[in-house]
Amino acid sequence: MSSLSSSIDVKARREAMEKLRQKFLELLKKVLNGEEPKMIIPKRTLSNTIYDKERKLLLLGSETFERNFLDMREARKFMQTVLMASIIYEALVNNEYPTIRDLYYRGKHTIRYRDHRGRVEEENTWDEQRESDAVLRDIEVYVGLLREDMLILSKEKGKVVGDMRIRSGDDVIDLSKMGHGAYAIEPTPDLIEFIDVNAEFVLVVEKDAVFQQLHRAGFWKKYKAILVTSAGQPDRATRRFVRRLNEELGLPVYILTDADPYGWYIYSVFKIGSITLSYES
Amino acid sequence: MSSLSSSIDVKARREAMEKLRQKFLELLKKVLNGEEPKMIIPKRTLSNTIYDKERKLLLLGSETFERNFLDMREARKFMQTVLMASIIYEALVNNEYPTIRDLYYRGKHTIRYRDHRGRVEEENTWDEQRESDAVLRDIEVYVGLLREDMLILSKEKGKVVGDMRIRSGDDVIDLSKMGHGAYAIEPTPDLIEFIDVNAEFVLVVEKDAVFQQLHRAGFWKKYKAILVTSAGQPDRATRRFVRRLNEELGLPVYILTDADPYGWYIYSVFKIGSITLSYES
Repeated sequence: MSSLSSSIDVKARREAMEKLRQKFLELLKKVLNGEEPKMIIPKRTLSNTIYDKERKLLLLGSETFERNFLDMREARKFMQTVLMASIIYEALVNNEYPTIRDLYYRGKHTIRYRDHRGRVEEENTWDEQRESDAVLRDIEVYVGLLREDMLILSKEKGKVVGDMRIRSGDDVIDLSKMGHGAYAIEPTPDLIEFIDVNAEFVLVVEKDAVFQQLHRAGFWKKYKAILVTSAGQPDRATRRFVRRLNEELGLPVYILTDADPYGWYIYSVFKIGSITLSYES
Repeated sequence: MSSLSSSIDVKARREAMEKLRQKFLELLKKVLNGEEPKMIIPKRTLSNTIYDKERKLLLLGSETFERNFLDMREARKFMQTVLMASIIYEALVNNEYPTIRDLYYRGKHTIRYRDHRGRVEEENTWDEQRESDAVLRDIEVYVGLLREDMLILSKEKGKVVGDMRIRSGDDVIDLSKMGHGAYAIEPTPDLIEFIDVNAEFVLVVEKDAVFQQLHRAGFWKKYKAILVTSAGQPDRATRRFVRRLNEELGLPVYILTDADPYGWYIYSVFKIGSITLSYES
């Protein structure tokens, strides 16, 4: 379905393929030179998550670790990482848009082999999706590409309305002309181009129903706001979209949640990010 | 914020106000004439839910029941019904767009009164939202207005893309120009006007992530489809929107879910409706 993809996706796909390929070619070269293949991967641990006071964000620190092929304790993880990379690369080549669940299923199988005593052994590539998700995160930091950059898609709850024009895919969309409905944000918000904006701030509303009410009552028109809802816990794309509105357009962001611990948590995730995903900030 | 509402909403609001007012004026007239006020309400019970073989839908039957003010067992329900109607009417007059949760909170209070022995008693208008929700459903069937007609809003998960133009509020929206994103359906889909459509069928996808994949791969362009996602269990608006595509535009509807009991249930809800909400079909 290549010809049906947007030109934006065609370009993003080519770039991701190239970057992924270059990174893993390094391993291949090591093997061909008779050297031990190893990956040097940034640590995604709490101890390597730092709070950047300047940007007021949780970011990944500079610590790294080695993943070696010729180490019994690391061979499985090494295999998983290369397996995941090859699945993603194939999906890119085949013009696909997998989800993380697709990646899990595609990679999950049992490897049968003979051990050094000649006995047949079995080993699963991975068991639960938690495992393959962690491997994907390793690849994101190792290659320096977010999953969205590799056109791995996910469900997306975020919506937006406001006096603003954006380019998404091959279309220009006027977010002030959505009627009673709204624009559902794409799962790859870094591919959006902001064309022009006429607003003084961003209001992020936790509850979708409250978003509907404010939208319908014309709040964003009256107060010159970009109105966004995360529809509960914000997903990656909504957070990224809001961050871009703030960093690139300089719009202050206000967040309307319930005044309970969940609300504060949602606020904190928008404001400083999360530890698990510190690398995406 | 009246001037900021769409002309469609202004009209819908006026119509709902008039209909609600007329219906409850009947009660007032009875009181002024010294008669006992009573409401004759269609039954929303399983026994009064019929399967219409022609339209292949669950519909409300013709049975009714009386709700009498001068009956100890019904006085509380009577009070609740009138209370709910007055809250909705006030919201309509004040250009508001309440949610069902708002209606619950606005109506919830304690009534203090002296009983026939002179003792002070207390009675809550309603305790849980389940109670006020049931009263709202009574009003919907009693007055013959869906909550959406009375501009009571709710969260809304449904999204759509496809080669189709609609009018929503005061805007014309081209659903084929949403880029990588989608159009988030409004919670009041009966107010949408279908302008023109160039498609051969509707594909409803349960999972939002699968919707994203099909959209991104250009499925709806290649196969001339209107692509909809319910993002899980379909809400009222998504069901209604899909039904209108089928009944008014004659488009066949295909539904893509997991092949498990949840998937079958989602399919059945789209196909024949639900017992609780048989009156909205």
